[in-house]
Amino acid sequence: MLKQRITAKTWGLAPTALVMLTLLSDGHYAQGQEPVAEPLPTLILFIGDGLDDQHVTMGRNYLAGQQGTLVMDTLPIRSAVQVETVSSDGMPVYVADSANTATSLAAGIITSIGRVGTDPRNKPVPSLLESAAHAGLRTGIISSASVTDATPAAFLAHVAKRGCENPAIILGGRRYGQMFEGCPTDARGNGGQGSVAEQIAASAADLVLGGGLEHFVIPDADTGRSALDEAKDNGFIITKNLTELREADTQQPVLGLFANSHLPVRMQGTDGRTAEAPEPSLLNALDWRLGSVTQPPAMDCELNPRFAGTPDLATLTSIALDRLSIDNTQGLFLMVESASIDKESHDRNPCGSIGEIEQLEEAIAVALAYADEHPNTLILVTADHAQAAQIVPEPSLFASIPVPIYSPGKVARVRTPEGGIMRINYATNLFESEEHTGANVPLFALAPHGTVIPGFLRQRDVYALMMDYLGLDQP
Amino acid sequence: MLKQRITAKTWGLAPTALVMLTLLSDGHYAQGQEPVAEPLPTLILFIGDGLDDQHVTMGRNYLAGQQGTLVMDTLPIRSAVQVETVSSDGMPVYVADSANTATSLAAGIITSIGRVGTDPRNKPVPSLLESAAHAGLRTGIISSASVTDATPAAFLAHVAKRGCENPAIILGGRRYGQMFEGCPTDARGNGGQGSVAEQIAASAADLVLGGGLEHFVIPDADTGRSALDEAKDNGFIITKNLTELREADTQQPVLGLFANSHLPVRMQGTDGRTAEAPEPSLLNALDWRLGSVTQPPAMDCELNPRFAGTPDLATLTSIALDRLSIDNTQGLFLMVESASIDKESHDRNPCGSIGEIEQLEEAIAVALAYADEHPNTLILVTADHAQAAQIVPEPSLFASIPVPIYSPGKVARVRTPEGGIMRINYATNLFESEEHTGANVPLFALAPHGTVIPGFLRQRDVYALMMDYLGLDQP
Repeated sequence: MLKQRITAKTWGLAPTALVMLTLLSDGHYAQGQEPVAEPLPTLILFIGDGLDDQHVTMGRNYLAGQQGTLVMDTLPIRSAVQVETVSSDGMPVYVADSANTATSLAAGIITSIGRVGTDPRNKPVPSLLESAAHAGLRTGIISSASVTDATPAAFLAHVAKRGCENPAIILGGRRYGQMFEGCPTDARGNGGQGSVAEQIAASAADLVLGGGLEHFVIPDADTGRSALDEAKDNGFIITKNLTELREADTQQPVLGLFANSHLPVRMQGTDGRTAEAPEPSLLNALDWRLGSVTQPPAMDCELNPRFAGTPDLATLTSIALDRLSIDNTQGLFLMVESASIDKESHDRNPCGSIGEIEQLEEAIAVALAYADEHPNTLILVTADHAQAAQIVPEPSLFASIPVPIYSPGKVARVRTPEGGIMRINYATNLFESEEHTGANVPLFALAPHGTVIPGFLRQRDVYALMMDYLGLDQP
Repeated sequence: MLKQRITAKTWGLAPTALVMLTLLSDGHYAQGQEPVAEPLPTLILFIGDGLDDQHVTMGRNYLAGQQGTLVMDTLPIRSAVQVETVSSDGMPVYVADSANTATSLAAGIITSIGRVGTDPRNKPVPSLLESAAHAGLRTGIISSASVTDATPAAFLAHVAKRGCENPAIILGGRRYGQMFEGCPTDARGNGGQGSVAEQIAASAADLVLGGGLEHFVIPDADTGRSALDEAKDNGFIITKNLTELREADTQQPVLGLFANSHLPVRMQGTDGRTAEAPEPSLLNALDWRLGSVTQPPAMDCELNPRFAGTPDLATLTSIALDRLSIDNTQGLFLMVESASIDKESHDRNPCGSIGEIEQLEEAIAVALAYADEHPNTLILVTADHAQAAQIVPEPSLFASIPVPIYSPGKVARVRTPEGGIMRINYATNLFESEEHTGANVPLFALAPHGTVIPGFLRQRDVYALMMDYLGLDQP
């Protein structure tokens, strides 16, 4: 009997295997009939990138109404998860990035900002997906970002810096207009495991779906072969749209790359507007007690035209669960990332974040329906780190005071379907991208009876809990 | 048998009353011996004003270390609580104040900003404390603010505007340098229930401890009598320090007023410093891509000298539980507010907030010890609304980019005991007081076995849960 099946008690389900035993004359027991199949452990981990309580509440107020309930709110267990980060010289760091936090969730360690699947001394640490695949479980990764982005990468690869996504940039070069030193010691040519794309191509995952085609088509300077070539060699079927994905042979692993970079988001503000700076009058600019301020006009959330044709997370989750359930004899691990809650918060686009939360909601609903049919399913929904957006008063709490009071940052006034105005403040800096923030993040869970999830845990505890649930030993 | 004792099943404890019954000849049962006393329901509600997840994490990082655990983190249940507010014309409002949220917690309704114990049409709604006292439970309120402040007031009084704290201001006048119209229809002279101080004096609470003496000494313009005079008439012993409180006859209700206004907070930044604006160089002021920025120097949290002699929340909680346990035959309700997490966040003083979180922690520890001895104790720790403070990266996530990147608001760089620098950003405005924010807030709970607390609820659900626990019918 396989390890993860032995640990049925840890899932708390009464075993359904009804084995008839016969006492033989030699004192041993003989099995009288074939056992009914035990329920296989299924773990679906949703990561809402940047999905802190401000964003959860933004999503609730917009999508369900202030008095409404999100799908994630209906999960019976809710906990808080402390985010832990360490500097390269061992000091605590109070705000994380998606790379080090995804590494904590995927591999159970505390590491430094920017690291993917490596500890602060650059030692690779095995991920839960790798352990699960090694034990024979069926495994999959879905992201609305490039699959080489930090969160999916931490489950599939090991590099010193999250930027080392392909065989060119791993050697360094210009990135986001800045010089980037790369991770040369991780390069294949230097005896390393290669870039994130190359490691995904070599991975044992059964399914990897998202964006990032651009990183898979770059040829290695030495061999001339791309990660896409290597993925094919490794048995992956490559699909670039839903039709191809649906038609892909279910007996082979599948790599679905549906955009060159991150997948477009579903929603945007009116005419693509994002948060804007309030405009003080000339008089107010001279003396803060005088004059007036013009707040940005309210915006609606509308469909982002660039989203057209993009597979949504719910469809990908549904296809993934179907594929991974076929010939599943040991259990199933699927990670689904709604990546752009964070990216749109960096860009001060609340409608972008809300659309990603809506996609996450729909994908969770797919998982809940799966759990109805597969009672041994553990669903976890969490975030990697908190983000900049804050819901602030509309109007100001101090509106009765005859002085113009306004954010020094940028503000979006989002009209909600129920007719309110939800004002979102982005004011961690005035640079082109907001900062992350350091609050603990939520964890929502649906757990089989008897699986204990504490009210407070750390990201490395979430890893340990998942490993235990799947019956996998921590390396 | 009293109602709240009948509902023992709702607490989930097996009744300890072992009643010997004898079947009599007439078919009735006779009680064979005196029952062992049933455990009385005890409810201790902690409200951390402004205690959102950013503040919880600030407290954890400073008081316990990034990898540490707060006392509140050890409570086995954690949920999220949606904050609901409505405008006077019935539209959803996405950021609350302490008055309307305390009214939701105390009375189970959604109301408008600034309202204390009244609905949006100014109808008084009975509070849980009033229902509990009416049913014979022992009741108490503790706050580190003035006891007339919004949070304690919502359990004890009913006025249209939170500012109507005493018999003078209820008629209107200058307040915080602004004209305030008061709540004239609530004034005694106009047939109303009077100011918050007067309603506290007339209340049925067994214990009210905090600050706010200044509101109790103002005489009513018509009668010449103060709320303090009326409290004495109503049987309250008035105490102004811990010695007097400890010596107060335990057979009488007690009103303890330990400061003229709010109680001073325990901690402050180095030399009283609070958050400060980063200072861009002249060159950077001319062009955001050039020059440099000087961040405020790091600060330590140190003892606030003005705190000397102030009773701490733990001591008040301990004394309150002792007093309320005497002659307790029906159950106990105590609300303890750590008020200045919020007030110090308004003032951009992270050390002030952290000191208040520390006080809350100590008071929770007292309650946990009480629960050890009184197993039928429900402890809830929640917040009324979220606040402005955000933990932001130190240094910036974009520090490698050769452009000065800094908050447009005010920043405090707090040195933690474990040797990190925790950078706190306050940037909802540049006015003298920060705005609240709109995230859902945490709920931590220790509940007797069988008491079900959902992972997501609304503030009015918290009220309903508390009423049910105490066996009280909602009016």
